[in-house]
Amino acid sequence: MTEPTWMHENFEPTGSSIGYRIVRKLDEVQSPFQRIEIYESTDWGNLMLIDGAMMLTTRDNFFYHEMISHPALFTHANPRDVVIIGGGDCGTLREVLRHEGVATAVQCDIDEQVTRMAEKYFPELCESNGDPRARLLFDDGVAYMANRAPDSVDVVIVDSTDPVGPAEGLFNKAFYESCFRALREDGILVQQSESPLALLELIREMRAEMGKAGFQAFKTLPFPQPCYPTGWWSVTLARKHADGRHGGFEFREADARTAALGTRYYSADVHRGALATPPFVAAALEN
Amino acid sequence: MTEPTWMHENFEPTGSSIGYRIVRKLDEVQSPFQRIEIYESTDWGNLMLIDGAMMLTTRDNFFYHEMISHPALFTHANPRDVVIIGGGDCGTLREVLRHEGVATAVQCDIDEQVTRMAEKYFPELCESNGDPRARLLFDDGVAYMANRAPDSVDVVIVDSTDPVGPAEGLFNKAFYESCFRALREDGILVQQSESPLALLELIREMRAEMGKAGFQAFKTLPFPQPCYPTGWWSVTLARKHADGRHGGFEFREADARTAALGTRYYSADVHRGALATPPFVAAALEN
Repeated sequence: MTEPTWMHENFEPTGSSIGYRIVRKLDEVQSPFQRIEIYESTDWGNLMLIDGAMMLTTRDNFFYHEMISHPALFTHANPRDVVIIGGGDCGTLREVLRHEGVATAVQCDIDEQVTRMAEKYFPELCESNGDPRARLLFDDGVAYMANRAPDSVDVVIVDSTDPVGPAEGLFNKAFYESCFRALREDGILVQQSESPLALLELIREMRAEMGKAGFQAFKTLPFPQPCYPTGWWSVTLARKHADGRHGGFEFREADARTAALGTRYYSADVHRGALATPPFVAAALEN
Repeated sequence: MTEPTWMHENFEPTGSSIGYRIVRKLDEVQSPFQRIEIYESTDWGNLMLIDGAMMLTTRDNFFYHEMISHPALFTHANPRDVVIIGGGDCGTLREVLRHEGVATAVQCDIDEQVTRMAEKYFPELCESNGDPRARLLFDDGVAYMANRAPDSVDVVIVDSTDPVGPAEGLFNKAFYESCFRALREDGILVQQSESPLALLELIREMRAEMGKAGFQAFKTLPFPQPCYPTGWWSVTLARKHADGRHGGFEFREADARTAALGTRYYSADVHRGALATPPFVAAALEN
């Protein structure tokens, strides 16, 4: 047994770093797309890194998985058909399937190895993979959305890595046009949108690309996520109409309050709170 | 000119680390109480470390300073006399003095060197130090509160370092009893209360000690603070009565909405949002 050591992820774009005290490396694999490493930590359970970037820890992934799924699903009036692009650790899929009204949930991640690693080291995230409503695909998410039938999806969740490497194609107009076409009129696109403090420019660019693809209304919800740069992260929701025809970003608050989803961070009140855009973020995003 | 290097603060109690890309060390002083270091960073402005622990950065201190002051001041019906224990960087004092109704604001920090360093490297935080309502003391906060006249304070703000070293005496029953006695019946005690994810046990202990001193109602408000461990921090408010006689933790929302304080993170909606205690925090704190 060796002594625990500190491992740091120095994140160049923000000039800041996040680190953990590590017991040992548990596994690693070089997939056709990226390098996946699993570590055991002293206080945060297991960690998954992809190409050296922290993806999730056992202890704190609930913030992200709950906030990328429940706000969008409670904003849609009746989400039945959901597509998750990326999301290979299956944590988002698990949260989506907590909604009884969901009839189909397709998860399309390009890298099967992410899911294989999650099954082994984050089994709790994969506990709904056998749900008859779930379909796990290991394929190119850009192609999947381009080929998906028009008007066939209620919510598209883009649960991807940063906009470099395999995920780069998930942050541009062409991809968003596919999402727009596949979504029904009252559909919602939601995407992880990085740090609302240190990466605001990226959120602006994302929204601009979504706008070019036809989306007209946007809302960025911040939440804590200790394992990501700055510890403060966000998701951005987009809708096809700005006139509130389909409810804008108000949500089914009564449903959220009574749903008893067993969430640890998400609640109707937390959702309401996340709709309060801090002044400096509002000024930057002009919403 | 040397190349920037990475500096990491490995925080043993949470098994996690925060770091910054550093250009150079600007200054350092060993005061009678602690070691104060100032660094220039590539992306976060200047940094102040005390005994190796990150205290503040130019870029992100606004979260903390706004959230330790405005929620408490807008929760009190008419805060006129405010005491800040600690707070030597003067950022909290500046926020308190934005409230026109405040008549006196005493800042009592044991270490004058913290203020001298702030004047030099964080001058924007000290811009209200010459306000005729402000009084800067460099003295023991425990003694100050013990000697303060009974029923003479509306809001006590404990803006201290972690509960080790010089600040240890600010987290126990004896100190809270002094605060209780000095506060008027409708007074509010507010204290920085560490990470609501990784240091929940400390918040429980703080509340228990406050309770032994007579405080009956507590509310913990979370907020992002990238430079502190986990990037998610909190303040805890305490009041003398649990029966809502003095308004509990509802706040002067209309005043907060129209005050035009020039805050960057705080707003009436953000305050409302911070009152939404996430389910796992509520379960741990039983509130």
